[in-house]
Amino acid sequence: MKYCSQCRADIVVAIPPGDNRERYTCSACDFIFYENPRIIAGSIPVFGDQILLCKRSIEPRSGYWTLPAGFMENGETTQQGAWRETLEESLAKVEIGNLFSVCNVPRINQVHMFYLAQMTSHVFGPTTESSEVALFAEQDIPWNNIAFATVKQTLKHFLTDRKHNQFQLHHLEF
Amino acid sequence: MKYCSQCRADIVVAIPPGDNRERYTCSACDFIFYENPRIIAGSIPVFGDQILLCKRSIEPRSGYWTLPAGFMENGETTQQGAWRETLEESLAKVEIGNLFSVCNVPRINQVHMFYLAQMTSHVFGPTTESSEVALFAEQDIPWNNIAFATVKQTLKHFLTDRKHNQFQLHHLEF
Repeated sequence: MKYCSQCRADIVVAIPPGDNRERYTCSACDFIFYENPRIIAGSIPVFGDQILLCKRSIEPRSGYWTLPAGFMENGETTQQGAWRETLEESLAKVEIGNLFSVCNVPRINQVHMFYLAQMTSHVFGPTTESSEVALFAEQDIPWNNIAFATVKQTLKHFLTDRKHNQFQLHHLEF
Repeated sequence: MKYCSQCRADIVVAIPPGDNRERYTCSACDFIFYENPRIIAGSIPVFGDQILLCKRSIEPRSGYWTLPAGFMENGETTQQGAWRETLEESLAKVEIGNLFSVCNVPRINQVHMFYLAQMTSHVFGPTTESSEVALFAEQDIPWNNIAFATVKQTLKHFLTDRKHNQFQLHHLEF
C-alpha cells in the first residue's frame, strides 16, 4: 500500500494515537487502513460414505486435491459462504450442517472454517477452479496430494469422528 | 475507495474477468481491492459464578455494557485475539476455553466469536475503551443496557448452558 485511496497522498506506516500497533496511515488526511484476517469458508461434502474432493486448477497448490472452500464474501454468513464455494468449485449442491473445524493460520492471516455437508444429489463436476471433482471412499483419499494442511487435518478428524459416530468441533492451529 | 493505493489512478467498481461480483478495481493497473468480513473475537470472562462486563466509553454504543471483544488482528489466532481484547478492554487476564458462540452479522460484514474464559485473578478495571468494568451475578445483568444483540444472545445461551452444566457451541445469525 503506497498511496491513500481517499486523497492520493503518500501512505506511511505509523502507530495511530490511542493504538498500539503499526497501521498504514495517510500522511495527509490521517485516514487509517486496517488490515485484518480473512475467513476461508468450506464444506466436507458427503454422498453416502464418500467425500467430494476438488483437484485445484489454480494457484496456490494447483494440481493438488482440496475440500471446496474459499474467501467468505461481504454480505453473506459463514454457512452461505461454505455453500457458495462448494457450488462454485465443484458444482455440488449441499445441505450445510454443523461447524466441524476452525483452523487458525496466523502466518497468512486466515481462519479456515469447515462445515459438515450432505450432497443433495449426485451432481458435481469440473469448474474453472477445479480440473477434476470426484467422490472418494476413505481408502482412496489421495493423502500425499492434499493441497492444504487445514484440509488434511479436517479430513482426518472427520474420518475419526465418523468412525465413532460422534462429530464434534475441532479447533486447530497451523 | 476513490484512488488506487498502488498507482494513484481512479478506482472503478467493476466485475473482474472470471469473477462474479463487483469489486473496487484500478482503472489503470487493474489491481483488484477485495473486501471481506471481519472477525470480532471476544470472551465470556467468569470469576466464580460472576460474569465480567465492560461499559463502553467509545462509539458505537457508548454507555452500554458488553462482553470484552474487538477486531481480530493479523498475525494472531482467534483465541489470542479474544485474550488480548479481554485484557485491553477490562485489564482482566483469562484462560481461554472452548469456542462458545459464532455470530454471523452479514449486514455489517462481521463474524463475532466468543470463547468461554476463566479469570485467573480478581484483577480488572476501567480502560480507555471502558468507563466501568464490573462482575455481575446472573440476577444483576443489565439486560436493558447491553450494547449488542450478539452479546445479549451469547450471555443468554451461556446462562442456560451453565444451568444445565453443559456448554455447547451456539451458531447464531443476526
